[in-house]
Amino acid sequence: MELQHDSTGGSAGGTGNTAVTRGVSCIVKLGGAAITCKNELETINEENLKIVASQLRQAMIFGPCHGMDWSRRPGSSDIPNVVDNFDDQVEVESKKFVVVHGAAPHILASGSFGHFQASKSGVHKGGLTRPIVKSGFVATRISVTSLNLEIVRALAKEGIPSIGLSPFSCGWSTCEKNLTVADASTVGGAIDAGFVPVLHGDAVLDSSLGCTILSGDVIIRHLAGQLQPDYVVFLTDVFGVYDRPPTDPEAVLLREIAVREDGSWSVVKPKTEDTSKQVEITVAAHDTTGGMVTKISEAAMIAKLRIDVYIVKAATEHSLRALQGLSRENIPDDWLGTVIRYAR
Amino acid sequence: MELQHDSTGGSAGGTGNTAVTRGVSCIVKLGGAAITCKNELETINEENLKIVASQLRQAMIFGPCHGMDWSRRPGSSDIPNVVDNFDDQVEVESKKFVVVHGAAPHILASGSFGHFQASKSGVHKGGLTRPIVKSGFVATRISVTSLNLEIVRALAKEGIPSIGLSPFSCGWSTCEKNLTVADASTVGGAIDAGFVPVLHGDAVLDSSLGCTILSGDVIIRHLAGQLQPDYVVFLTDVFGVYDRPPTDPEAVLLREIAVREDGSWSVVKPKTEDTSKQVEITVAAHDTTGGMVTKISEAAMIAKLRIDVYIVKAATEHSLRALQGLSRENIPDDWLGTVIRYAR
Repeated sequence: MELQHDSTGGSAGGTGNTAVTRGVSCIVKLGGAAITCKNELETINEENLKIVASQLRQAMIFGPCHGMDWSRRPGSSDIPNVVDNFDDQVEVESKKFVVVHGAAPHILASGSFGHFQASKSGVHKGGLTRPIVKSGFVATRISVTSLNLEIVRALAKEGIPSIGLSPFSCGWSTCEKNLTVADASTVGGAIDAGFVPVLHGDAVLDSSLGCTILSGDVIIRHLAGQLQPDYVVFLTDVFGVYDRPPTDPEAVLLREIAVREDGSWSVVKPKTEDTSKQVEITVAAHDTTGGMVTKISEAAMIAKLRIDVYIVKAATEHSLRALQGLSRENIPDDWLGTVIRYAR
Repeated sequence: MELQHDSTGGSAGGTGNTAVTRGVSCIVKLGGAAITCKNELETINEENLKIVASQLRQAMIFGPCHGMDWSRRPGSSDIPNVVDNFDDQVEVESKKFVVVHGAAPHILASGSFGHFQASKSGVHKGGLTRPIVKSGFVATRISVTSLNLEIVRALAKEGIPSIGLSPFSCGWSTCEKNLTVADASTVGGAIDAGFVPVLHGDAVLDSSLGCTILSGDVIIRHLAGQLQPDYVVFLTDVFGVYDRPPTDPEAVLLREIAVREDGSWSVVKPKTEDTSKQVEITVAAHDTTGGMVTKISEAAMIAKLRIDVYIVKAATEHSLRALQGLSRENIPDDWLGTVIRYAR
């Protein structure tokens, strides 16, 4: 199957920064489905987010941790519990991670953070001179930065030195929906200073259309190219990529997909008897950015950079193992998920 | 009196961007004292903030407005009230404004957003390798971005197309506490696209110290130099600058202060009989960034750029008139506030 670049970010080639941060272990995509309640407007799945934060900490920090969210919760009068006795002698060893979350659709979607605001006003189609688009742009940014703040707080509470970074604020912009200005030096500077940048899908300026929506998946692909992490993990709400809709009782989890230089890909594991059989993948009509076809396409473009991609169900033992990094050569049979990698 | 640059940002000269946005009417400083409850941790003065937002709208937008905050409030299950019938035919005339708010101290402070977190950990003094400083940095950013989001939402609710911009995310950084990297092109791009950027005092990286706190006042001075607004308004919790602490019943409001090229300044109005009499200004011990000496120093540096500065009490008729722009030549007698301007 030949993959095509989608329209939002195929040519991020001219957007590179010069000073490249080295030694990044992992870029993690927190899928909207994994951390928000899809059928409730702007409701975080607190339980899942807490587990995700805990697993991220276990995967990246080796040593004592302190809560780093000292702020009052909205509606609460609790005084923050600040640790007074930090042990400044302990050097904490940690891996370099970057987190990206979504919640901004290309086209239209009912759903959680950002989707509603963006779809209502058509921010992705541009036209900033129209009052409804301008209002939608402002509303979308409020919505996605609210979600970003919640995720940063959840990670900080767990002891992860998370720093929220908005693509718009970083000066990132597009032309005809392609990412054209995307200097990663602020992201790199934050990583080098020992922080975990947390980026998000965002409403951005477009030099041709006026504005558009930059999706989390495009951000991940761009950062993967810039930062060359050891691996990328997509946390989602199903165990991985299936040969047909996961709700179908006959659905088979695809354990490993190999991507060739020309962008074509094939299922390596499990081996199918009928090699000509097309993988059936259905995109859920309500999820225009997180659909499986888009996911495989995005993952394949990262795999072509020689970076392994794991698609795995959030808040499970399998996501923890993926975040910790799986052995390239020997994926254990009891690990449930999909590996998408370059065909050597 | 000879003014000295303070240590955080005296030399922002080498930080300019090339593409300068033209026609900015006003940069507004929302003083922490004016919009938060100083003696309660992280509590917004909702009433004042609502009035400030309404006055800003009146001063900058001439035509129909729509609420632009379509997000659910924390703890509320209300469905956002989205206006369905935007009138796309109406061209809304508006002035270009920039808003900056503070809440990050240089030294130490009890108080509201950011102060507590920064003072507890000494983020302003640097030393990011120390766990408590790193944690304090994360906690400070969570706190100030929370406040930023609240202000952006309040402005958007009023119909102002506000866009939150964090100096850290914009890539701004310091060296020995002096602002050395501060490209204003993202701010300018947002203004040119018809938005009102809302910046804030922030924890930033420092190439010498590791990190420090960048105050709202330093940001305002830098942006004033870059954007050359017609005037700058400092919204605070007193009527202006007095000759002694405002709590003193003998205190006299200084109506006009003239700043000379060498940085020295004198009171033009009211005329004092004893011209050698020193103005007594006391800095409140609890407010290390918002003290009057700092305020006059910062204002004087802006006035030296030939930009008039109004210091005025927030949420009063006087603040509305200041935001709308006072006639340079004829400040009305019934206007209460302090004008700081260049001595021609």
